[in-house]
Amino acid sequence: MSQFWSDLVHTLTPYVPGEQPKVDNLVKLNTNENPYPPSQKVYEAIASVNDERLRLYPDPNSDALKTTLQNHYGLKEGQVFIGNGSDEVLAHIFMALLKHDKPLLFPDITYSFYPVYCGLYGINYQTVPLTKQFEIDPADYRIENGGIIFPNPNAPTGRVLALDAIRTLLENNPNSVVVVDEAYIDFGGESAVSLVQDYPNLLVVQTYSKSRSLAGLRIGYAMGQSHLIEGLERVKNSFNSYPMDRVALAAGVAAIEDQAYFDGCCEKIIHTRENLVEFLTKNGFEVVPSAANFVFTKHKHLDAVDIAQQLRDKAIIVRHFKLPRIDQYLRISIGTDQENQALCDALSDIVNA
Amino acid sequence: MSQFWSDLVHTLTPYVPGEQPKVDNLVKLNTNENPYPPSQKVYEAIASVNDERLRLYPDPNSDALKTTLQNHYGLKEGQVFIGNGSDEVLAHIFMALLKHDKPLLFPDITYSFYPVYCGLYGINYQTVPLTKQFEIDPADYRIENGGIIFPNPNAPTGRVLALDAIRTLLENNPNSVVVVDEAYIDFGGESAVSLVQDYPNLLVVQTYSKSRSLAGLRIGYAMGQSHLIEGLERVKNSFNSYPMDRVALAAGVAAIEDQAYFDGCCEKIIHTRENLVEFLTKNGFEVVPSAANFVFTKHKHLDAVDIAQQLRDKAIIVRHFKLPRIDQYLRISIGTDQENQALCDALSDIVNA
Repeated sequence: MSQFWSDLVHTLTPYVPGEQPKVDNLVKLNTNENPYPPSQKVYEAIASVNDERLRLYPDPNSDALKTTLQNHYGLKEGQVFIGNGSDEVLAHIFMALLKHDKPLLFPDITYSFYPVYCGLYGINYQTVPLTKQFEIDPADYRIENGGIIFPNPNAPTGRVLALDAIRTLLENNPNSVVVVDEAYIDFGGESAVSLVQDYPNLLVVQTYSKSRSLAGLRIGYAMGQSHLIEGLERVKNSFNSYPMDRVALAAGVAAIEDQAYFDGCCEKIIHTRENLVEFLTKNGFEVVPSAANFVFTKHKHLDAVDIAQQLRDKAIIVRHFKLPRIDQYLRISIGTDQENQALCDALSDIVNA
Repeated sequence: MSQFWSDLVHTLTPYVPGEQPKVDNLVKLNTNENPYPPSQKVYEAIASVNDERLRLYPDPNSDALKTTLQNHYGLKEGQVFIGNGSDEVLAHIFMALLKHDKPLLFPDITYSFYPVYCGLYGINYQTVPLTKQFEIDPADYRIENGGIIFPNPNAPTGRVLALDAIRTLLENNPNSVVVVDEAYIDFGGESAVSLVQDYPNLLVVQTYSKSRSLAGLRIGYAMGQSHLIEGLERVKNSFNSYPMDRVALAAGVAAIEDQAYFDGCCEKIIHTRENLVEFLTKNGFEVVPSAANFVFTKHKHLDAVDIAQQLRDKAIIVRHFKLPRIDQYLRISIGTDQENQALCDALSDIVNA
């Protein structure tokens, strides 16, 4: 508390990220990082920019990375926006495109940063309950609104929404921006980026932090028609001209160029997820169908906080959200097969104790 | 223009950074980058984090870098804030500490991002004219205000304000935060960081982009008493949990550890600046006394835009601001001795044509 704070600061309830422990030898299944390292091409790209040009400002417009992403996703010039992690991209989206008189809509169970952005920018919002099966039902979004945002697959549930349902949302809400936050789309969902040319109100957000194994570098992007992207650029250029450093820009290009490696990592994670779901189902857990690199699960009898604590005692960390409707669930990131085996062994012990 | 933009976006006038040309072989004296490369220790630090840990999120709190800076500047825990370049740090400062009912004060001739931040956050501001000699006079700031911000040395003038004058400003305005933006302080000024423990209303901002030769990595920081830093952390954690990537965090620590290299670069730049000032003075230019890595100068007879264009034709770029009071001035960054010689040769040709 300080007399020098603006009025706003007193009202903020900041986001609390998952723990980033400073000890090694933990099986870290709490923040949905990729268990596989980035592509060799990323290391090479970083080494290639580790030179005297670091004294110079980066390209403020991230043009090379934008071009790479445009080509990769079959988009046109001016349809990609780049930011310092998708959290920064989302922040600019909230300010530029989701602040209107009518309330912003998002699911009651979703990424918990959304209400924080609303607090930061004074955005009026209304949550829309997921169905009992934790599904987004487009019919529930027939409410007057100033925008809609949801992750797809949703977090922390992992449930994916089909493109047909997204089309329905877009068509039912032609005067609102519909933001599809696809942090986890590469683990089994179908991206809405294919709809960008058809819907002027669609914005798709992706990140390098999950499927591209680059949480450590902070690269996120948004894709949509150019009038939406221009709104984001105006806010970005009123906030920080140079959000992307030379290393991230180079690594971002290289990661996209190694498609084979990317495909291999995603396939391995999906395979491990299937094994984990099978194990959990056989051991008294209910599992929400997941198209993400995590599962959302609860045991039929055992308490979630209890399980998390016992896992922690065995040096395995998972994430628990102390929130209505989901306080008996755990969100468990998909690790390597070895990490997954350690998890299953530990859960066996806990369940059979 | 788009129906989907928030009202705010329509009102923004984004900042326009200095040109970052994509061709080589230019003598680039337009954005005050350091002409010398970063320390070897920086390259080593970057190489040492270019590994599989890039798949993991960075430390959201930048603790190791904070500790390094605390120790370097003799500060206490909780007195350093880190951001993605000092532009991001400034953005958070404007939102967290400078938005009040009373107007924010800054010089009429100053860093042109300040009014842009005011536009972004709806901050009421009033500019205070510099003296005829482009000096900040603390007596001119005895106006009711909600905060004061200025660069020291000022940009684009290069003039430095002495610590005594800063003390006067702090004491005359005990209920306002006074932000001293020290992007250029290491080239001849005295940092106000020595006053932090004495003044609860002082915040000092610095950057790695100039004296640390790391514009390409985006590292800025603010130093002040913990109640001010806490206000910034609250905004940062409502905007982006992980603004600093693993590479920047490691490089930031390494750059501080190589004091000898840093001192050597600063001395060389100061020496080159003195040579340039001597040349300019002998060749019909008036030069504002500079404590920065640039000079602000006008020719007694020749037109500034004309000179800039003729330099450009000779592959040398400098910066011109089309703004009241300074439209006959050029801001010229200090390059290497070789670049400086090329500049002086070119100016000789222009002046003697």
